[in-house]
This record gives sequence, structure tokens and C-alpha cells, in this order.
Amino acid sequence: MKINKLALAAAVFMGGSVSAHAGSELTTLLMLLHENGTISDAQYQRVLAEAKATEQKTIAQTEDIQERLDKATNVEVNVNKGGLAVKSRDGNFTTQIGGRMQLDSAWYGEDDSAAGSTLGDGTKVRRARLYIKGTVNKDWFYKFEYDFAGTGDTRKGITDIWVGYNGFDFEGLSVKAGHFRDPFMLQDQISDNNTQFTERASIDAFTASRHIGVMGSIDRKHWTTALGVFGDKANTNGGSDDEGWGLGGRSTWMPVNEKGSLVHLGLAANYRSTRGGEVQFKQQPETNISGVDFVDTGKLLDVDSYLTLGAEVALVKNRFSGQAEYIRTQLERDTTSDLTFDGWYAQTGWFLTQDTRPYTHKGAKFKAVKPNSPFGNGGIGAWELALRYSTIDLMDGAINGGEMDNVTLGLNWFPVAGLRFSANYIKVLEVEGGAHDNEEADIMQLRGQWAF
Amino acid sequence: MKINKLALAAAVFMGGSVSAHAGSELTTLLMLLHENGTISDAQYQRVLAEAKATEQKTIAQTEDIQERLDKATNVEVNVNKGGLAVKSRDGNFTTQIGGRMQLDSAWYGEDDSAAGSTLGDGTKVRRARLYIKGTVNKDWFYKFEYDFAGTGDTRKGITDIWVGYNGFDFEGLSVKAGHFRDPFMLQDQISDNNTQFTERASIDAFTASRHIGVMGSIDRKHWTTALGVFGDKANTNGGSDDEGWGLGGRSTWMPVNEKGSLVHLGLAANYRSTRGGEVQFKQQPETNISGVDFVDTGKLLDVDSYLTLGAEVALVKNRFSGQAEYIRTQLERDTTSDLTFDGWYAQTGWFLTQDTRPYTHKGAKFKAVKPNSPFGNGGIGAWELALRYSTIDLMDGAINGGEMDNVTLGLNWFPVAGLRFSANYIKVLEVEGGAHDNEEADIMQLRGQWAF
Amino acid sequence: MKINKLALAAAVFMGGSVSAHAGSELTTLLMLLHENGTISDAQYQRVLAEAKATEQKTIAQTEDIQERLDKATNVEVNVNKGGLAVKSRDGNFTTQIGGRMQLDSAWYGEDDSAAGSTLGDGTKVRRARLYIKGTVNKDWFYKFEYDFAGTGDTRKGITDIWVGYNGFDFEGLSVKAGHFRDPFMLQDQISDNNTQFTERASIDAFTASRHIGVMGSIDRKHWTTALGVFGDKANTNGGSDDEGWGLGGRSTWMPVNEKGSLVHLGLAANYRSTRGGEVQFKQQPETNISGVDFVDTGKLLDVDSYLTLGAEVALVKNRFSGQAEYIRTQLERDTTSDLTFDGWYAQTGWFLTQDTRPYTHKGAKFKAVKPNSPFGNGGIGAWELALRYSTIDLMDGAINGGEMDNVTLGLNWFPVAGLRFSANYIKVLEVEGGAHDNEEADIMQLRGQWAF
Repeated sequence: MKINKLALAAAVFMGGSVSAHAGSELTTLLMLLHENGTISDAQYQRVLAEAKATEQKTIAQTEDIQERLDKATNVEVNVNKGGLAVKSRDGNFTTQIGGRMQLDSAWYGEDDSAAGSTLGDGTKVRRARLYIKGTVNKDWFYKFEYDFAGTGDTRKGITDIWVGYNGFDFEGLSVKAGHFRDPFMLQDQISDNNTQFTERASIDAFTASRHIGVMGSIDRKHWTTALGVFGDKANTNGGSDDEGWGLGGRSTWMPVNEKGSLVHLGLAANYRSTRGGEVQFKQQPETNISGVDFVDTGKLLDVDSYLTLGAEVALVKNRFSGQAEYIRTQLERDTTSDLTFDGWYAQTGWFLTQDTRPYTHKGAKFKAVKPNSPFGNGGIGAWELALRYSTIDLMDGAINGGEMDNVTLGLNWFPVAGLRFSANYIKVLEVEGGAHDNEEADIMQLRGQWAF
Repeated sequence: MKINKLALAAAVFMGGSVSAHAGSELTTLLMLLHENGTISDAQYQRVLAEAKATEQKTIAQTEDIQERLDKATNVEVNVNKGGLAVKSRDGNFTTQIGGRMQLDSAWYGEDDSAAGSTLGDGTKVRRARLYIKGTVNKDWFYKFEYDFAGTGDTRKGITDIWVGYNGFDFEGLSVKAGHFRDPFMLQDQISDNNTQFTERASIDAFTASRHIGVMGSIDRKHWTTALGVFGDKANTNGGSDDEGWGLGGRSTWMPVNEKGSLVHLGLAANYRSTRGGEVQFKQQPETNISGVDFVDTGKLLDVDSYLTLGAEVALVKNRFSGQAEYIRTQLERDTTSDLTFDGWYAQTGWFLTQDTRPYTHKGAKFKAVKPNSPFGNGGIGAWELALRYSTIDLMDGAINGGEMDNVTLGLNWFPVAGLRFSANYIKVLEVEGGAHDNEEADIMQLRGQWAF
Repeated sequence: MKINKLALAAAVFMGGSVSAHAGSELTTLLMLLHENGTISDAQYQRVLAEAKATEQKTIAQTEDIQERLDKATNVEVNVNKGGLAVKSRDGNFTTQIGGRMQLDSAWYGEDDSAAGSTLGDGTKVRRARLYIKGTVNKDWFYKFEYDFAGTGDTRKGITDIWVGYNGFDFEGLSVKAGHFRDPFMLQDQISDNNTQFTERASIDAFTASRHIGVMGSIDRKHWTTALGVFGDKANTNGGSDDEGWGLGGRSTWMPVNEKGSLVHLGLAANYRSTRGGEVQFKQQPETNISGVDFVDTGKLLDVDSYLTLGAEVALVKNRFSGQAEYIRTQLERDTTSDLTFDGWYAQTGWFLTQDTRPYTHKGAKFKAVKPNSPFGNGGIGAWELALRYSTIDLMDGAINGGEMDNVTLGLNWFPVAGLRFSANYIKVLEVEGGAHDNEEADIMQLRGQWAF
């Protein structure tokens, strides 16, 4: 009995939870020497008593070490992406702090035949965001993100502020409430950190953007669907008029969805009731420094509601990626004629290095490129060439908003995860109609970006 | 001697600080075998030497493990509340990062008999705050909090920014300097995260709010007192006129203050010198979406100073809680007659679940409800029903600001700590006088809140 | 063989990586007893087998403890400065979160003989900044800092937002791109947390401030040099005009640079092309509450470019420190005459306690005072007396901007690292010319500051 207990103590000492026989060699030897008569009863008892005293101490000390180790590994703290990520041991509680910095500069060459206004060269903090997001009690999650770029009226303000729950018994189902992007348009679902060009294609004029609302979504490996009902934007004030509201949905099908291999198809619709308010669609030539819109419908009054439809496709095959979208919006107006505008783009990218554009079925979108061989110690990071054609048509009936066709050549360098440098050459092929008719500018645009 | 030293080494190995005899069983056995003549002198010395060599190594290794454990437990990092809390091992240094997100939506039903303006239904980010706070050298503490909600002029800006010291030899005494709330009005001391209804009772029109100042306070279990002198608000600019200043104090007595059992009584006074400036009191019907004030004094000119007095009472008995306050403000005006306005409210809450409204003598106020049985795994969170009657009278002499009486029925759900969903039905019983005379609206208001 | 392996196991058990002979005393004893015939072959084999079983378990358990220790010491988290600092074990990845809070109040005494406007007493949040900064992959680093003080147009906005790289094979070389301070003027390079007085000397009117740009710099112990090319400020918007641009450089020589002993000499130049735009130089009397500028050139039109030159010197000998700078700016104007303005200051500080003003060759500037004996437990913190004379001359040709001479007496108390309380008495000795001619005000100014 005593021997067994001692053996247990020794075992505990060895690390906590070992079977009773492990580590018992000293006590076995002691017993054998006693049986052999090598040591006397008194000697046996003395050594055994000492061993027993050790037992008590080692149990306490082992518990203490384990306790301190438990405490020390209570959370995992990680700074490898530049921000801060903390996760509880069971993963049920997490907090992440991070952000993005995008610094742009642009040089504009202009078509002398055009009478239009000039574009001012310059530099700009395009986005400067910080976020905190986290999980509580495993099933509840939130995000709070703010964009500090701009000043006064042009300040972008709150981007994401929402709470979600995904503790359902249905795979991939989650619900979220707050201020976030309507589920619409592939290039809008893709974070601006991860777009292939510095600016989204010109049909971003039709973006549904973000609103305060409630959305349910199911995200599975080979399909996703999301549907939400939305009120106003976060950065608006109340008043005596009821706010507008919207309804948005997007469904995607990914028959192929493996690392380095993707076929993505999607359809989306976004309805917005504007209660006879005004709506405006306008767009710069895929640049954001000068702030001059080349196509612009002006303020469209008495708009009762509008419905925007989109179809999207995306492909990846190792170093190659492709993406295309068509968007069409129809405005219903009480007092005057209805209007229809549309546009589309197609783009393709080719990594010069052994990299691929990564995709996630969570939100059905591309995510951040992480270079296979980071810059430094012989690595050169990831390098990508990209080409895009885009067109937008803001002319219908009496509305002379103009039509614009652009082609963009892009080069992306991702030295290490989180960092990106992009150079875009944009050639405005044609502007037809509108205030900037025939203004075929060309644009050189650089971006430095740190997403952490 | 050698044996003792070896025993010590073994002891150290066992965990660091054990008495010299523990763990000595092997050396004792060795000694006995030597005495018995079982092993020779040479054999004894050889094993002893080996044991001695082990001794040196184990001491070093034990120190290394302890050092690594010390380093690893140098701070405690905690994300269980959704934000981030870090504490040094001795507790003398702490940093916490957190915030709050409050998202509201409201629907307004209006009394057709009223001629007044309409209230616009809608949604709103009510508050979007982040804070960082901490302790340095045990006695010094600070807080920095900013509200990102709103846009342009309606942006709320800096809320708390202050430094405090509590290293005095007097129990509960602390001093703080910076921008923070004047010590006035119970419902204002209670964080808006923890108020029983989505909006504070209408006498919040008389709030002293926050100013840059210096305050001394004593917080003990059964009484508190605070007194401060204050300058301007944080978000104002200088100029050629001297700023106003204020003096504020609040004292409370809690004859009963146990978990689930509270009797709280308080008196407060707030004086503000406005140097002949203008003052305005106004209030929405305990909602904040439409922004329409139902009672409003308009700008009162030539106000030399005003004195606001308050009396407060709060009770808790297990699942029941009650709270009532009376506020009265008197304005002194140089050129015209003095004015007096007042108001009061009484509210009560009843938890449907086994929960209670928690209270802290630090600041003498209610704090956040933490559900006894969090939602998930059979738990349903905490559920509370609440009822409030409130009245405010902004009519005196020539000032026809109106009088408003409201009753509010509330339902609060706290699924897990930090999360809260509230539904409030507000019935404006009567508006008498003012621009919204007889406008007896009713209001349905929802809030989702995450405080982390 | 078996014995050796067992010895190894025992050694591993003792801490992981010890030579094969350590901890082998039990197996040696066993072997000797067997050789002596004290124990039989069977007994020997039995104990040996038990020891071998232990071996397997202890190896696994030791690895587990080491793994958990590795995980637990994966990063170092530190809150001792009030904010949060996290560092990966190898130091290649870091994240720091911190900020600064500066709260001012001022009382103005005015010269009755002056006709000018009055200065309004008051309080102000002078700066309220938060930052996040970090390192990724050892060589890449970034900073993002925002100032929340002020409101609307006076909000300060983004201060630092940049990315840097220092993985070159050249000692002290680094490159950074983004929005940061031009390398110009010693008192501007010193963080406002660490200036000797509450406000910088009046020649701060000529500050180059921050722009979006790219800068290369070499920082070595006894010399530094920096050169950058810059575009616009962060908080501006684009438009149809090209932005201005600038070029700035600064070189310093520190023949003596030890703790408590410094000789620092520097020269700097800053050129800015304004493309015929407008420029204005103006300055308050080294205070920032009332916002009234005592000297002011007004808007200078048609400025083609301007070149600002500076010479600087700084000294430290134990408790004594001294610092002086001369700045001169020359404006070229297309249509009218060129202009020249200048100014200088000299200041000195004396610690009453055993402290010294610390300096870093990284950026060639003074850094934060950390009191030798922090306040509490008998310590009184660091106390410093300081005196400054400053002059600025904004008069040239037809421009009657005024000349101002000030003397300032300062007292700084640094109770613990990060905290600072300053009292400044500023006497405007003379204002000659300009709108505030002869307005010899005196100013009492207090600041509480927490930098974390």
C-alpha cells in the first residue's frame, strides 16, 4: 500500500497524471533491498518515511507549476500580423485590434483636345482605419471599425459596427445586426485591402454600401446565400421624415473551391425605397486624388425606389485569376419617367511569383494575398500583373450623365503579409456625353498599404 | 555536509523552496548502504559525485524554469469581457481597452389631433465609444474615451479624459483632474450602458454633463461625497471671452448596501456661472432618433448663473429595483426676471429571472447586469421588466417651454455579460404648452448594445 | 547501453538538454549493487525495466512542459508605461498601443495701456492622441496616430501614418513613407510630450510640420542626416489644382553623446513650392487657450516658393540642459517683392532633483524624462526649473506682422514616468508693430499630461 502510494507520488512528480507504476524504481529497489536483508527494518522505514514526506511536497509543487502554466497559457497573444490578436485557451473568447493605412499619390496626363476641367496631381491618405473585433461566449461576435481619413464633411466615419450570433444548429448560419455592407456586388464584398487594383471598377457608382440593418447568411464551402433588411447609414442624423429602407440579397455557387482553383458564380439584388427622395450616381475615372467625377447623373429627384441587379463570376487557376461583373439599376420615379443605368467590368491577374489569389467562402470573396516567399533572406515577396476593362453608362432619357470606358494596367507587390505596394496606369479610353465629354485623361497612381 | 547539500539540490529540483530534508531518500539510502558495508567507499564516493554533478545542473534548470514561469506570468491578459484587460502580477500596473456600441431603431405613432411636426422613423448609431484606461505605479490612474457616433457638428467627441490619484492614507479618497462628469444626478452617474431604459428620464435636460475640472471624492461602503470645480467642456475652442465655470457636489448615504439589498439616498447641487451667456433646456420624448424636442425653453439670454438641486433615492430587494429623482434649476438673469424649472421621475424594475440589479459604492450608482445563467447550454440570460413615469416642466413666467409627462414600459434582455437588447414603449401622456402642445405621440424603440 | 539511455532519460527529466551522465546516480547505484551481488539478475532487470518505463513518460512530459513554457513565453506583454506593449520572443514582431492626454488651463493678465483685444481665460484639451505602432518581419515598421482634440475644423486629425523599412546593410539607415514630420527644427523633432515648456518657442510659426512624403535617414551615435521629399498634408482634399511639394533635410553632429553629457549641433533646410499659392505666418504668445495671435503676417499671396533655414545647438551636463535655435525664412513671390522673416530662442533647464534630460540619436532629439526616484514611498519624482527667451520678427517691407519678445519661467514635475505637470509664467516683453502693438500681456499656464 505505502509503496504504491509512494510510486504514485513519484509519478505525480514526474508530470501529473501518470500510471501508478511509472517512476517507482527507487521504491521497488528499496523494497527488494529490504527483502534481501541488505537494509534493516528501521532503515527501510526511515527511507520510506523520507520518501513519503517528499511525496506531499512534490504533489503540492507539481500542482503549483501546473497552475502557473495554466495561468500562463490562459490566453494566446499574437502580434505576427502587425496588430494584436488575443485568444482564450478554449477559443471561446477572442479580441483583435488592427487597422489599415492606404497612402496614394497620382499624376494626371490630360487630353489637350478636351475643354474640361483639369485634374490636380497630389497625395492623399486614402483610408486610415482602426478596428476592434471579438468573440464572447463562443457564439457571439462583434466588430467596430472607424475610418479616420478625410476631414470635416469628407471624413468617412464609422464603417463597421455590428453584433452577430452563430450558435445555431445549422451549418454556416449566422445572423448579424448593426451597420455593415449590404450583401451586394463581388468587388464590394472584397475588402479594399484585397482588391486587385487601387480603386474598384467604375460600376462601384452603383454600390449598395453600408446601412444599419439585420442580415441572415449561410456560408458553406460550395454555396452561400445572404438576405438582409436595412435602414439608414450610420453617419446620418434623424429628423421629421421617415428614413428610407432597403432589402438586399446575394447568392453564390462555387462548384470548384480549392486552394488555387476556383469557379465562382453569383447573383445579387438590392432594392431601396427612397420615399420620393433624391439619388445621384457619379464616378471618378478609377482614381481618388483629384475628386473630379467624369460621369455624373446629377441629383435625380422624386425617386420613389430603385432596384439594382448584379451578376458576377470569378475564376482562379494557380497564378491566374479572373473576375467580371455586370450591374444594372432601375429607378422608379413618381412624377417623371423611370430610368435605367448599367455597367460592367472584366479583370484578370497573373502572379509572376509562385503565388495565388486566396478565396474564402465566408462572404464568398477574395481575401488577402500572403506571399509564398516573403521579402528578405532571398525572398522577393509576391508580384502580380493585372489588367482591367471597365465601362459605365449613366445616360438615359433626359439624363446626360455620360458614359466612360477605362482600361487599367496594374502591378502589385506584396513584400510581406499585410504590406502592399501598387502601381496603376489608367487610360480613359472614351468619355461620351456629360460635362467631361471626350476628356480622355491618363492616370499614374501609386499606393502604399499596410493592413494590420 | 555533502549529503545535506545534495538533499538541498534535490529539494530545489522538486520546486524551488523546500526544506533540506525533503527528497533526500536516495542519499539517505546511499549513506545507509555505505554504513552497512553493502557498497564500498569508492562506490559511495562515485555515486555521491554523480549526485553532486546532478545538483549543479538541476539548480540551474530549476531556476530557468522558474524564471520562464515568472516571465510567462508577468502579466495576466483577459479577453472574457470582449475587450482587452492586462494586469501586472502585482496589480500595480493595468491597461484596459474596451468600448460600447448602441444601435437604435424607433417607430413613431402620432396623435392625429396634434398640429405639430412629425417624427421620422429610423435607425441610428446612438453611441460608438472606445476607451483605454489604466493604472501606473499603483496610485495613478487615467481614462481616455471617445464617442465616434454622429457626424460633423453632432459628433460627440471626447467623453472622458482624465488622470486620478488615490495613494492617500485616507480610505476611499481620490482626486481626479481632466474632463469628466460633474458629480450630479443619479441617472447621469449611471453609465448609459446600465440605465434601465434606452434613454434617461426627461429631467436629463438639466444634466450637468462633463467639464474640464478637478474633483475630490470619498467613496465608502455606506456613504460617498464628491466635490469639484469645473471649467469648460472639452470640445470647445478658446477666444477673447473668459470661459464660464462651475461648482458641483453630491453626497449619498447607503444605510443598506449588500448584494441584492440596497437603500440609497442622495443630495446634489450644481452651480454654474455663465457670465451673462445663454442657456437652453430642451428634451425629446425619451427617444433619440427623430431629434425633435417636445419641450424647449429656447435660448435664454443674459443668464448670469444657475443653480440646480437634486434629491435621489434608489432601492433594491433581490429581483426588484426602484429609483426616483427630483431636480430643480434656478436661473439668475441680470436684466430680466429669474426663472425656475423642474421635473422628476420614478421607475421600477422586476427581473423575471434569478437576477438582481448590481450597485457599487464607487460613484454610488448601479452597474452592469451580469446574467446569472448566460444564454446558451440551457441558459436564457437575464430578463427584466421595467416601468417609468417622468415629468418635466419648462414653463415659468414668459417662458413657454412646455410641460411633458411620459410613461415608459421596458423589457431588457441580457443574454451574456456585455450584451443587452431593450424594447421600450413610450407613451407621451400629455404635452402642455410649447410648440408641441397636445402632441401625445407613442413610441416603439429598440436597442442592441454591446459593451466590451 | 540501457544504463546510458536511462541516464539520458533521467537527465531529460531534470530539465531537457543535459549531458548523458547527469542524474544517473540511481542507475549507477543499481549497477553497482548488481555487480556487488546485493541484488539478483531478476531484481536488477525488474528495477531497470521500471526505470525504462519511466523514461518514456518523462520524455513526453518534459516535452509537454517545455512546449507549454514556449507557448507561454511566445510573446512578452508589458503595461508598465500605462499603454500596452507586446513583443514576440525573437523581437521581430511588436505591437504597441498608447497615447497622450494634455489638459491646459490659462489665466491672462493684460497690459492696460494696450488697446488690443482681450485674451479669454479658460481650459482646453490641448492634445488627445492615440497611436498604434509595430514591427513586422523585423525590418518593417509602421505608426498610426490620431489627435482627437478640438472639434470640427479645429480637429487636429491624423498626425503620423507611415511605413518604414530598415533592413539595409548600412548601419542606421532607414526609409519611411507616409505622413510624418519634415526633418526640420530641433524643437519640432522633440515630441510635445517632452518639450521643456508647455508651448514651443514662437519660431514654431515657421514649422515645416507634417506632410505625405518619403524620407531616408541615417542615425548614428555621433551624427545623423535625413532628407525627404514631400507632398501635401494628410487632412486635405484633392481638386483641380496640383498640390504643392517640398524638400527638407537636417544634419546633426553630436561630438559628445553620453548619458548626462551632450553637445549637439545641427543645420536644417526646408524648401516648399507653393505654385503661386498663399502662405501665412502667425503666432500666439506661447499659449494656446485664447487662440489670439499676437504676431501675424496675414495671408501672403502669390508666393511661388519659400526656403527656411535653421541652426540649432543643445547641451546637457547632468542636471543642466540648454537649447537654442535660429530660424530664417525667405519667400519668393512672382508679382511682388520677396520677403524675409526670422526669429530665435534660447532656453535652459536645471533639475532640482538627481535627474537629467535624456537624449536619443534616433531623430537627434530629447526624449521623455523618467524620474530617478518616482513619487511614492518617499520618492518625490523629478523637478525641473526652466527659463526661455524667444523672439520672432514678422515684419518686412510692406508686411507689418509685428515682432514679439517673450520670456518664460517654467516649473516641471514628473511624478512617475509618463506623467508630467507643468506651470509656465510667460511675460510678453514687447510687441512691436502689427495689430497687437504694445500688448504686453502676462500669462499663467498649467498643464497636466499623461503619455502612455
